[in-house]
Amino acid sequence: LRATATKPDQKSEGLGFDSHKAVDKAPDTLCRDGTANTAMRAKFEKMLREAQDYICKSVENVDGGAKFQTDAWTREGGGGGISRVLTGGKVWEKAGCNLSVVYGSMPSEALQAANDRLKFGATDRAKGYAPGERVPFFACGLSSVMHPKNPHCPTMHFNYRYFETEGGVWWFGGGTDITPAYLNVDDMKYFHGTYKEVCDKHDPEFYPKFKKWADEYFFIKHRGETRGLGGIFFDDLNDRDPEKIFEFAKECAMNVPKAYLPIVEAHKNDPFTQKEKEWQLMRRGRYVEFNLVYDRGTIFGLKTGGRIESILMSLPETARWEYDHRPEPGSKEAEVLEVFRNPRDWV
Amino acid sequence: LRATATKPDQKSEGLGFDSHKAVDKAPDTLCRDGTANTAMRAKFEKMLREAQDYICKSVENVDGGAKFQTDAWTREGGGGGISRVLTGGKVWEKAGCNLSVVYGSMPSEALQAANDRLKFGATDRAKGYAPGERVPFFACGLSSVMHPKNPHCPTMHFNYRYFETEGGVWWFGGGTDITPAYLNVDDMKYFHGTYKEVCDKHDPEFYPKFKKWADEYFFIKHRGETRGLGGIFFDDLNDRDPEKIFEFAKECAMNVPKAYLPIVEAHKNDPFTQKEKEWQLMRRGRYVEFNLVYDRGTIFGLKTGGRIESILMSLPETARWEYDHRPEPGSKEAEVLEVFRNPRDWV
Repeated sequence: LRATATKPDQKSEGLGFDSHKAVDKAPDTLCRDGTANTAMRAKFEKMLREAQDYICKSVENVDGGAKFQTDAWTREGGGGGISRVLTGGKVWEKAGCNLSVVYGSMPSEALQAANDRLKFGATDRAKGYAPGERVPFFACGLSSVMHPKNPHCPTMHFNYRYFETEGGVWWFGGGTDITPAYLNVDDMKYFHGTYKEVCDKHDPEFYPKFKKWADEYFFIKHRGETRGLGGIFFDDLNDRDPEKIFEFAKECAMNVPKAYLPIVEAHKNDPFTQKEKEWQLMRRGRYVEFNLVYDRGTIFGLKTGGRIESILMSLPETARWEYDHRPEPGSKEAEVLEVFRNPRDWV
Repeated sequence: LRATATKPDQKSEGLGFDSHKAVDKAPDTLCRDGTANTAMRAKFEKMLREAQDYICKSVENVDGGAKFQTDAWTREGGGGGISRVLTGGKVWEKAGCNLSVVYGSMPSEALQAANDRLKFGATDRAKGYAPGERVPFFACGLSSVMHPKNPHCPTMHFNYRYFETEGGVWWFGGGTDITPAYLNVDDMKYFHGTYKEVCDKHDPEFYPKFKKWADEYFFIKHRGETRGLGGIFFDDLNDRDPEKIFEFAKECAMNVPKAYLPIVEAHKNDPFTQKEKEWQLMRRGRYVEFNLVYDRGTIFGLKTGGRIESILMSLPETARWEYDHRPEPGSKEAEVLEVFRNPRDWV
């Protein structure tokens, strides 16, 4: 554990820097006492911590080289986080898995704007608050991006989160998605199949709905391309017993290693060319474009004064932009680009 | 000149793709006939074309390797552009210099939101239009970013533009700024001194005002750092005879080679270490963060359906993000970071 608060150059590092205090060890819970109107806050945090341990351990085992470095911090007024980042691994160039607990407030319009309610539900997130009023909220999430070195190993992202407003509105959100640089149909069938199985146990409508949602969400509008080859994504989920949604979110998080790591194992030693490496780096450039321009979690983090290094751990160690690059027709690069432009069903 | 419209994979490349038609050679003017209420539109475009020719030629001379590649296009309904990009040079990894002429419309609020009027002027950009109404506008600009290979050679950006609304409001904007990875005080004195001289010929208030504006504008809020070491930046300039502002903008554009190229000449063969290269790439990561999250021109381009490859030519060919990187106290990296955090006066 590194103590980050005492470092002299941190003063102006972020909007909310002064509210981040490094601690040697995170307290057993980052939730404040006595403020929850449900026991779900602490329960969800505990589950995410277990998932974080399990996923980081599983990734370390596959990497066989580097270990995750841990930074823990608390925030004035409650909340905090545990960031875990692995860099310079044998298999992964950069892999992050961050827990965060936020007590904040947002203008009611901003809270509503992030809501896909017209398409996928009807949560009135700002219920009880007038336009222009700030809505105090609680949020707890585990967020991860893992960028492998080998261009034949896909990048993976997941995020599972629980929100409550002080107005008593609650919802779950999350998803796991995969971003290969090259198309491997069997791998995609396996990854999507694993999540379809998880979804189907809870609701047969989940997978088709959440798969579509991922394709729509992870879309780089200005490119007309998806970021990767999808997975599942959901938000504002509160249409049933929260205990049932909790179980679903838990199973989604706990299945990250099963859905992702066998694909990495299978390709971590694949030979590759300089051209393939450069294509991977260009796709990482697209990853950066999506995250900085569109990603809800990144924008939420920047706006709420989150810990910048934790928020931007999602960016790859290296990325590339070539002017007006177009893959050769018939190439492997053109093949996968076609699928980024026209999302496909895998299972 | 490359014909870009006939390429089969362009269909879904951008929001506004269908409105971009590649042409072998740009027409003599990209302004529509008969719509201008001043002759300034065509005059400004002509000046920018001359500046583009002069600057690109000057850069090619210093590079001594690669040449600029030209893509020209027109848009339905008027307007178009000429993009020039040099890649894989001896000195520059990527250098772009793009002319664009846009006939578009924006919601009056969005047009006003981009206006720093509270701080620097009082232009009512949406004059004559009600809230919620779209304001038709004309914009013509030359925009450039040049990323050299050697970490001791700074990146340079400039943009000069002229706006008119159909409501008869007009203004000029622009600036030139420099982004080194390492501090060289003499170089900064030279660069800023050159622009101070240009400014002083037109108005002794320009340089101090526009230097400060650049420091405030090129600020990465979530990092608490400036993108680089500034220069000049102005917008909504319409407080005097437009012919006088035209002359000022022209002189600013024509002085880009004089202000920038001697610095590159002086350092293009400086020896450097792997560590210095990596630091340069991390500063380029910050460049990407600024451009995708805050830059007015980038956001304007993405929102108005501009040609994506032209807008994003500003991104470096390569960039790097290391988790929680902190320079060693007393190092050259710490020295320049201190100035990014506390902008300095150079002349």
